[in-house]
Amino acid sequence: MVEHRKPIPVSEAVQKVIQQARMMGTETVPLERSYNRILAEPVIAGHPVPPFDRSPYDGFAIISAQSEGASGDRRIRFDIVDHIGAGEVSGKTLSGRQAVRIMTGAPLPEGADAVVMFEQAAEAEGSFTIRKPFAPLENVSLEGEDVKAGEEVIPRGSLIHPGTIALLATFGYAEVQVAKQPVVGILSTGTELLDVSEPLVPGKIRNSNGPMISAQLARMGIASKTYGMSVDNLDESFGIVKKAAAETDCLITTGGVSVGDFDFLPAIYERLGAEVLFNKVAMRPGSVTTVAVADGKYLFGLSGNPSACFTGFELFVRPALLRMMGADKLFLPHTTALLSEDFAKANPFTRFIRAVYDGHSIKPAGFNKSNAVASIAKGNALIVLPGGSRGFTSGDRVDVLLLGVEEGSAEWKI
Amino acid sequence: MVEHRKPIPVSEAVQKVIQQARMMGTETVPLERSYNRILAEPVIAGHPVPPFDRSPYDGFAIISAQSEGASGDRRIRFDIVDHIGAGEVSGKTLSGRQAVRIMTGAPLPEGADAVVMFEQAAEAEGSFTIRKPFAPLENVSLEGEDVKAGEEVIPRGSLIHPGTIALLATFGYAEVQVAKQPVVGILSTGTELLDVSEPLVPGKIRNSNGPMISAQLARMGIASKTYGMSVDNLDESFGIVKKAAAETDCLITTGGVSVGDFDFLPAIYERLGAEVLFNKVAMRPGSVTTVAVADGKYLFGLSGNPSACFTGFELFVRPALLRMMGADKLFLPHTTALLSEDFAKANPFTRFIRAVYDGHSIKPAGFNKSNAVASIAKGNALIVLPGGSRGFTSGDRVDVLLLGVEEGSAEWKI
Repeated sequence: MVEHRKPIPVSEAVQKVIQQARMMGTETVPLERSYNRILAEPVIAGHPVPPFDRSPYDGFAIISAQSEGASGDRRIRFDIVDHIGAGEVSGKTLSGRQAVRIMTGAPLPEGADAVVMFEQAAEAEGSFTIRKPFAPLENVSLEGEDVKAGEEVIPRGSLIHPGTIALLATFGYAEVQVAKQPVVGILSTGTELLDVSEPLVPGKIRNSNGPMISAQLARMGIASKTYGMSVDNLDESFGIVKKAAAETDCLITTGGVSVGDFDFLPAIYERLGAEVLFNKVAMRPGSVTTVAVADGKYLFGLSGNPSACFTGFELFVRPALLRMMGADKLFLPHTTALLSEDFAKANPFTRFIRAVYDGHSIKPAGFNKSNAVASIAKGNALIVLPGGSRGFTSGDRVDVLLLGVEEGSAEWKI
Repeated sequence: MVEHRKPIPVSEAVQKVIQQARMMGTETVPLERSYNRILAEPVIAGHPVPPFDRSPYDGFAIISAQSEGASGDRRIRFDIVDHIGAGEVSGKTLSGRQAVRIMTGAPLPEGADAVVMFEQAAEAEGSFTIRKPFAPLENVSLEGEDVKAGEEVIPRGSLIHPGTIALLATFGYAEVQVAKQPVVGILSTGTELLDVSEPLVPGKIRNSNGPMISAQLARMGIASKTYGMSVDNLDESFGIVKKAAAETDCLITTGGVSVGDFDFLPAIYERLGAEVLFNKVAMRPGSVTTVAVADGKYLFGLSGNPSACFTGFELFVRPALLRMMGADKLFLPHTTALLSEDFAKANPFTRFIRAVYDGHSIKPAGFNKSNAVASIAKGNALIVLPGGSRGFTSGDRVDVLLLGVEEGSAEWKI
C-alpha cells in the first residue's frame, strides 16, 4: 500500500519552512573574524565621512576668492605658508594669497575653501601661480558628503562582506554584534552507503551527500556535526536522530524519506512527535523532500539522491538557516537568461536543472536525473522551469537561480 | 615637479599582472577541508556512476519481456521471490514471471531488465499484477549513464565547491591534492591612519583598507598577515616592506603610490630593485594603482582611497592570486544589465562604479567618489563604463562585474 502524499508548490513550501525559524541569539566577535556573519546590530555612523573638509588631491589649499580673474595672461601668485601631509593639521589660518601645501586626505586649513592640484599650479621656490579662477569648494571633499553623522548606514540582518568591514572599521567597530550561527547536524541514512575512504563493494556507493552538505554549510560559514551513516533500522535510527536533534540547532538527514520499505524517517518523525510541514513538494528533483519541526527545531529530510539533496538544501535549508540568524536576504540570487540548448522534457512539477551560466546564456550541466552527481560539480546555477510546461528550446528566456557564486569567469570581458 | 606617468589600459594591466604569477606548490588536504581550494589534480572517475544497473524507484524488478501484452483487461501477475533494499544484492536470478521487491538505489537482480514502480503495481500477498507492458530498461538507471569509468570529470585548476566535493566523495578521494595558498601581507601606509579601536582625532581617520583587504582575502579562503600601519617615513617604511616581502608570498600596500610628498612607495620599489609593471592605469577610481615584482614576488601598491583600493584588489590582486594557485577562472563574473538611473559624468578613463545589481537592472550604490566608503558596503557589483564615454541614461545596457556574490536575494522570485 503506497501512502498518498499531496504535493505542495515550491513557493508555499519555502514559506512554510521560513515561518518556523527559531531565532538564534547574538554574540560579539572581533571585527577581523566577522566576515560572512549576519549583523545583529545596524552600522551607525559615529561621525560624518569624511570627518572634516579635506583635500582629495595633492596640491595647495587656497581662499578661492583670491583666485578671481586668474588667466593664462594674468597668472595669480600664492605664497606657500605651510606644508601638511595627511593626518596633520595646519596651525595656520589663511588670509589673502596665502596657501598651504597639502596632501591627499589632509584637512583643509582654516580659511581655505578650495584646492589647486599640483598639475594646475606652476611652482616656484615658496610660491606658485595659477592661470584659472577656482570656485568655492572646488577640489574639496566636504565633511559628511559620503555619510552623515548618526546615519544608519547598514541595517541589522545584512551579511558582513568586505565592504561592510571597511565601514565597520571606519566607525571604530573593533567588535561587532552578530547572530550566533546554528550548529547543524548531518545524518546520512542508507545501508548502501560507504564512507569516502572505503573501497567500493557490489551494491554499495560512497556517501557523497554528507560531505556535500557539510560544504554547502561551510560556504555559509556554518559548522556542521556529522552523525555518520545510520543503518536502515528503525530503532537505531530513531536513537541517533533523537540524540542529534538534541545536540544541534537543526538536523539534516539524507535519504529515508520516500515510500520504500526501509524509509524510516516518516516513522521517526511520528515517534518524535514532530510536526511535518510537508512531505511532498511539486518539484523535480526532490519531490519527497520533507521538513518537520520538533521542539522548535528543524528536521530537514532531504532526498538521498545527490541532485535532489543538493537542490533541497539550497531551496529550503539555506533560507531557513539565514532566517534563524535574522538575515534579510534569504534566497538564491535570481536572474533570467537565454537557454543555449533545447530542453525537451515535460515538467509535470517545477523543474530545477543544474546548469552552467556564463552571465549571458545558460545550458544544462549534463546528465540530469535526480541521482546524477557529475552535473552538481559542473553547474553553477539552476534553471527553473515552471510546472505544467514542456518543450523549451534554445533561445527561450528562462528563470535562473545562481549557485556557484564564489567562482569566477575564465575570461576577461571588459 | 610632477612626475609624468603614462596610463595603460585596464585589460593590458591585468594581463601584465597575471603573466608574472609564480606558481605555488601543491599539498594534500582531507576532503572535509578542501572547500574553496583550487584542485591541483583532475577528478578522475575511478568507477562508472552508477557503478551498477540500479533501480531509481521503489518497486519490483522484472524481466520486461514477461510483461508483453499486459493491459487493464488482461493484467499480468508476477511472483515476488526476493526483497532487497539499497546496499543489498539479491542472490536470485530471475526467470519467467518472477520479480524482486527492490528499493531505490538497489542493484537490479540477475535477469531483470525493468522496474515496476509501486504505484504501477496492484500488490497482493507474495505477488502483484500490472496492466501495461514494460520496455527493456524501463525505470532502470544504467551503469555509467552519469559518468564513465576513467573519465576526467573535473579538470585541475577548478575551484572546489560543494558539488565538486560530492564528486570527490563519490570517487573515494578522502584526501585531495590542492594548490597551496599564498600567504599575503597587508601594510597600510599613511600617517593619517588610526587603528579601528582608537578614538578619532582631528585630521585622522581609521584604517579601513587593511581590514577590508583581509576580508577580501578571507572570501577567497586566503590568510593574511598584517604589518600594521607604516608611518610615512621612507627608511622605516622601506624596512617594513622588505621584511614583509621576505615573509610572505605577496605584499599588498595601501596608500603611498601617488605623487604626494610623503608617497614613498615609488622610492621603495626602486631601492628594492623591483620591476614596476605599471604605475598608472586608465581607470577611475584607482588610476595610481601600481604593481611591481621583486624576487618573483608581487608587490601590489593599491590606492589609499577605499573605493579605489577595493576595486584595485578585485581587478588585479584577485586574478593574480588565483593564477598563483593554477586556477582556471581568474576574473570576476561578467554580465550586462540595464541601468535603472542616469549617470551623467564623463568617463575620461574606464570607470568602475560600485553598484547594486538585482539580477535584472543595476544602479550606482550611492555616493561615488574614490574616497567613498559607504558605497563599497552597499554595493554587490561594479558597473563598468568605457573610457571616452559620457552620459549614460536609465535603460542603457552596461557591463557589470559581480562582487557581492555570497549574498542572496531578499525576495523569492520563482
